[in-house]
Parts: sequence; structure tokens; C-alpha cells
Amino acid sequence: MPIIDFRLRPPLKGFLGMVMYAQAERRDRITRQHGMEPAPSAQAQSMPMLLEEMDTAGVTLGVVLGRYSGVYGSVSNQDVADIVKSQPGRFVGIGSVNPSDRKTVFRQIDEALALGLKGINLEPGAYPSPMYADDRRLYPIYAYCEDKNIPVVVMAGGNAGPDLSYTVPVHIDRVAGDFPALRIAISHGGWPWVHEILHVAFRRLNVYLSPDQYLCNMPGMNDYIAAANGFLSERFLYASSYPFVSVSQYAEWFRRLPIRPELMEQLQYRNAARFLGLAA
Amino acid sequence: MPIIDFRLRPPLKGFLGMVMYAQAERRDRITRQHGMEPAPSAQAQSMPMLLEEMDTAGVTLGVVLGRYSGVYGSVSNQDVADIVKSQPGRFVGIGSVNPSDRKTVFRQIDEALALGLKGINLEPGAYPSPMYADDRRLYPIYAYCEDKNIPVVVMAGGNAGPDLSYTVPVHIDRVAGDFPALRIAISHGGWPWVHEILHVAFRRLNVYLSPDQYLCNMPGMNDYIAAANGFLSERFLYASSYPFVSVSQYAEWFRRLPIRPELMEQLQYRNAARFLGLAA
Amino acid sequence: MPIIDFRLRPPLKGFLGMVMYAQAERRDRITRQHGMEPAPSAQAQSMPMLLEEMDTAGVTLGVVLGRYSGVYGSVSNQDVADIVKSQPGRFVGIGSVNPSDRKTVFRQIDEALALGLKGINLEPGAYPSPMYADDRRLYPIYAYCEDKNIPVVVMAGGNAGPDLSYTVPVHIDRVAGDFPALRIAISHGGWPWVHEILHVAFRRLNVYLSPDQYLCNMPGMNDYIAAANGFLSERFLYASSYPFVSVSQYAEWFRRLPIRPELMEQLQYRNAARFLGLAA
Repeated sequence: MPIIDFRLRPPLKGFLGMVMYAQAERRDRITRQHGMEPAPSAQAQSMPMLLEEMDTAGVTLGVVLGRYSGVYGSVSNQDVADIVKSQPGRFVGIGSVNPSDRKTVFRQIDEALALGLKGINLEPGAYPSPMYADDRRLYPIYAYCEDKNIPVVVMAGGNAGPDLSYTVPVHIDRVAGDFPALRIAISHGGWPWVHEILHVAFRRLNVYLSPDQYLCNMPGMNDYIAAANGFLSERFLYASSYPFVSVSQYAEWFRRLPIRPELMEQLQYRNAARFLGLAA
Repeated sequence: MPIIDFRLRPPLKGFLGMVMYAQAERRDRITRQHGMEPAPSAQAQSMPMLLEEMDTAGVTLGVVLGRYSGVYGSVSNQDVADIVKSQPGRFVGIGSVNPSDRKTVFRQIDEALALGLKGINLEPGAYPSPMYADDRRLYPIYAYCEDKNIPVVVMAGGNAGPDLSYTVPVHIDRVAGDFPALRIAISHGGWPWVHEILHVAFRRLNVYLSPDQYLCNMPGMNDYIAAANGFLSERFLYASSYPFVSVSQYAEWFRRLPIRPELMEQLQYRNAARFLGLAA
Repeated sequence: MPIIDFRLRPPLKGFLGMVMYAQAERRDRITRQHGMEPAPSAQAQSMPMLLEEMDTAGVTLGVVLGRYSGVYGSVSNQDVADIVKSQPGRFVGIGSVNPSDRKTVFRQIDEALALGLKGINLEPGAYPSPMYADDRRLYPIYAYCEDKNIPVVVMAGGNAGPDLSYTVPVHIDRVAGDFPALRIAISHGGWPWVHEILHVAFRRLNVYLSPDQYLCNMPGMNDYIAAANGFLSERFLYASSYPFVSVSQYAEWFRRLPIRPELMEQLQYRNAARFLGLAA
């Protein structure tokens, strides 16, 4: 069975300069707060070790997300495309944009797609000028992506912004309602607003949820699992959020969750493949 | 044991033109997202079948709520009164008002009562001009109903408005605090804000909760049940939210919940009878 | 094993004039909503009985919090200091301030410390002019306390203000982020925003949580307990919130919770001792 890990940032190129690798102590502390142990590959910043962990986990494809951020550091679309090319068949890339540069943003999207990237990652609360997911400055981007059938990932959970107001699912609810044909994946699964984001996913059929690391021993995990076993079964996305959680530990832990066995392939592979428009 | 189903909209008159019947596919999809099967009576729009389902469920009385809405369609107070009369002893009616017509709203309430309706249903987020439950335009209505001892139903959960902000229990908390003698029933039980609306009900003794369809396999259901077994035992209202959930399936499902047997009559009948001011 | 009860208001001095003692019926009703029985010592307003209940519970030290409030009544820092002195070794005091009197607030803090009090208690939503925890008027106080290493207790849960908006953890998240070296204890544990305040505590290592009475049979209690067993183990504070819950009943009830035995001393004593800067 193939597995897509929907959030997997390898120790390569621009990622090494980002907080997730540059502040190893902070990262490992977060990992342990989840009740997990740091991934040896993350600590060693070793690509061969990561590939081995992916093999152990049965992860056939990792989704590498570009980022344009202030506090967390950035990684360019070119870097993401280079990573995808350097490890043939193991990664798929998602690009990012600078939303404050209105005049060039559509060009940035086109260029990302031309590089072979499969969608656009928006992190509204982490931009140098933080904004909510329903900020008017993002609406042309949503419209453009809806019209061109480009899937969009929105980071709207965990430490997605300067404070907790940036993850309130009200903002996502509005975007999903205003762009009903836009496929939207919520990274960090809207956590900690678990009941509320599940309402949004119940109501908006274009919303996919990826609780990723915040599924790990966090309040609300049983609610995510019940939804994955029920109304969310076609829109749950599996992700470790590596390097915050080990790819192989996450996979082993996930397999022990009370998930209906007949749904596993859907949750770990088919939903992500459909979201990304990958050939079956 | 008699049972009052606090939210039950039969396939009659104005209801047939509303989204819940006119968009059968949407309704059935929602039913299945709850892990339930569509009610045959709803699909057939058959009143005899519904009465049979009510008998199977042991539902002796259904509460028919009028509605003045934009997106969901409206049903007049006259229609509600006609339905109640056409099925002697099986239904009790609640009226609705057009809150934007300030000058006639008190007259609308008086007329609803003159038609034999037992209370007023407010759906702030579903009005043609959506508003929050603590909107200043609703305050004269709350005051009028408090002064005249008229119970008020407020839809403040689920898809109660254009977005998730319309169900934040802050608004209900203010209304309940500002009108402490007003009996307020929350339809859709404030879902998905389960912890928060339970706080409001813990604090405000004039608030009744009816999670209705959102009790069905939704995140937070165990919290509702624990409250019904505890501090909410005198203010929990049983409701299927038919036609979204089958009256008989809901009843069968509800009986299997871990509810203290000695509370069943209170939850399924006495609380609603007291709220509505029905003779015992 | 010593135990610190982090919120314990004895029937002495100014406390007797506060709502918690003056409105005994309201207090006992709240106690019963928690599924607990009123403390005989609270009903009798008897200090000898309370000391006996503390002994039964094994509570070696109670934290007496001063209050400057409109609706709930006030108790002066002098009163708190007198109580501490009158019961040698059984209580430790926390002072309060009048935040609207900007010019004297630093002096009030200094005087509280000179009286032997160990920190400052802020109850933003309960001030005569209610405010949010991140109100600009409180920022000089936070800055002063951070600079002088004075721990701060913030009441941000339960009936902390006129409505539910006063407990939204967004406000605490901002304060904790803006004053990263300030030790902040959240009284009433941010309830009912359980998932959300746990996110704040996950993210902000200077935040301590004390769910106190809202741990008792309230929605979310299992989430608090899981966090206490996990990432919150060094920042959970044990408290009965007496007189709302009996000191001895709370202790007996707490001991039966599924808490890892090796963490008990940390949760019931060491975290509070560290927070308050008490000698070990």
C-alpha cells in the first residue's frame, strides 16, 4: 500500500536555514511535548537516514511545502522544485507566494506550476505582515486558484500566527464558503479548535483536514479519529509534520489508532492523491 | 411514557418549499454524515408514514417551528397553526417573526399566540439580513417575551448563519444574562461550541439546550450526555431535528446512550413540557 | 507528602462579605452542579472545621488570593496578610491591585510584597470596569512583575467576566507571548476553552494552569488530565477553589483520577512551590 505523508520537510536546501532545523532544541522540545522522540535523521540533518525512515514507515511520497514567512524562515519554490528533482519519485512539491506583492502574485503561481509544483501553500498568520485566512489580500489568490483548479494548502492550526486568533476556524469557514470549488487542505488541522474545524469540514465539502503532529496525544485527537472514521473519511490527510515528528514513529503510532482498517489506504494515500490531482 | 420531539418539521404546507424538503439530496447527504439513514417518510414526503414513525418512536408530541429565513426558506405562523390543527394532539407550534420590521414585531408575536402557538423561534443568523443573537434589533423582542413570559427558541448551532461566528456562544451568554427571567432554548445546542455552550448553561439557569441532530455521532456528544446526566438534567431538550434525522431512528439510537434511566422522562418530556408551559 | 491548594479562601475577614460567603445558596448550588456536596466548614463559616478539612485532605498550605472586584466583592491585601499571620504556616497570600489607578499601582504591588504576599492576582473581567486580560491598562503591571520576577495569577476561566468573551484564551496567549519571562498562573484553567488554553500552555512555557473547580465533572476534564500526565506535568497547579468545592472532598476525588502516581507530588506541591518561589 502506498502512503503519502502530506507534510514532510527534508533537511535540504532552504529548510536547513529555517527555525525547524536551525533551532533544534526548540524542535526537539516540541517533539517531546507530543510524547514522541526526536527523529535521528532530523537531529543529524541526514537525508539518507530520512529516506530510510520513510522506507521503514512505508511512506512512498512526501509532500514538501514551500514557505514564505517572517518568523519561521522561508524556502523558495526553486528550492522545493530542486528537492523534488534530486530525489526522483520520493517527493511532490507545493509552492508558496508573497501575498503582499499583489501585482506579481499570479505570475508567482504560474511559475510554481511551471516548476512542476502541484499546489500553493498559504500561511496567512506567518507572513511578515500576519493576516487572517480571510484577509482581503488573499481573496484574489483564492479566486485565481479556484478558477484554475489549483489546490491550496492553508496553515491554520498550531502556532500558525502571533496568537490564537489566527487559527479560529471562522476565517477558513468564510473562505471555503466563498470559494466552493476550491480544494482547501488545512495543515495542523485547525488545532486546537477541534470541534469547530470539524464543523467547518462537516459543512464545507471542499475542506480537507490534516491534523498532522497535533493528532499526537493532543486534546481532541479522539474527535479527529472519529471524524476520519466517519464523515471525514474522504477528506482526512495523513501527515507527520516532519521534522517535528519522526516519519517512522508517526506511521507506527498511526497504525495503532482505532481506525477502520478498510479506510487506511484512503486516509494515508487516496485522499491526498485526489487532492493533489496525482494520477492513480 | 410520553415523549416530546422538540424539533420536528412535517412534510406539510410551507415546509415542502423549504430547503430541507426541496433539496432532498443535500438533506440526505447531511443525514448520512451523521451516520444515520434518511427517513422513508422524508424521502416520500408522506405524512402517514411520518405519523407511523412517530408512533414507533413513542413520540407523542412534535414541536413544529416556524421560520422566517432567507437562504433556508420560510414557513408562516398560519401554516404552523394549520398543521397543528390538522393533526389533533400530535403537534405543538412555535411562531416566527420578521425582526427587521420593528413596528409590527410585537403585533406578530401577539398574533402568533392568538393562533395558539406556544413560543417564538428566532434564527438570527438565517434572517435575510443575518445578525448575531445579541443584535440590538432583537433586544426589544427578548424584552417583550421576558415580560410576557413567552418562551423563546434561538437557533444557535450548526449552519445557523453564513459562518461559524454566528454560533459563538458569547452572544447567547449576553442575552441570557441580560434577560434572566426569559426561558431560552438553544436549537442545535450551540454545536460545535460544545464546551462553551455548556459553560453558558452551567452559568445561566434560564438556558435550555437541545443538541438535536448534532448529538448524533458528532464531536462533543459525550460532553452533552455527561451534562444531561448532571447539571443540565432539568434543561436538556430531546429533539430529532426531523427531517434531517429520522424520528424513529433517533429515538432508538437515543435509548442506547449511557443516560441514567431515571432521567429519561425528564429529558424526553418533562423539561420540554415545562419550557413550553404545557399542562402536565 | 505536602500539598499546596492553590485557591483556598477561608471564612475570615473580608472574605465573609464576598459573594462566595454572603450568597451561600448560590455557592451551594454551584457546588452541586459540580456533582459535589457543600463543605460543612463553608456553610458554618467555621475556621476550625476548615483546618480539620485541610488536615483530612493532607493540604499543608492554602493559597489565599486577594481580590479587587465589583460584582464579587473585594478583600484587601492587609486582610490577606492578617489571615496568613493568624494561621502560622497554613496559608500563603497573593495580593490584588486596583488597575484603574495607574499612578499608585506599582506602589500597591510593592506594599503587597512588603506585607509578605508572594504574587499578584489579576481578575480583569471582574474589575468594576471589566477588561480583557490583554487590556493596555494591565500591560504596565505585567511589565513591572516580569522585571521584578513577581508571579502573577490571572483569573481567566469560569465566570471571570460579564460574558464568555472574557475567558477566550486569545488574550492570555498575547500576554504570555509579550512577557515571556513572566510566570502566569491561570485560575479556573481557562475553562470552558479547554482545547484552546491547552494550546496556549503547549506553546507558552511560562503559563501554568489551575483548572481547580472546573476540573470537577466538567466537559474537558479528561483533556486537562491527559495534559497533566503529559506536556503540562511541570505546570499544572492543584486547587479546590474552596469554598466552591470542599478542600477534603476535592482531595479525595483528585486522588482517584487517572493521574500517574509518580507525578502526584509535582502536581499537588512542587509546581506551586516553584511558581510561588517558596523554599523547597
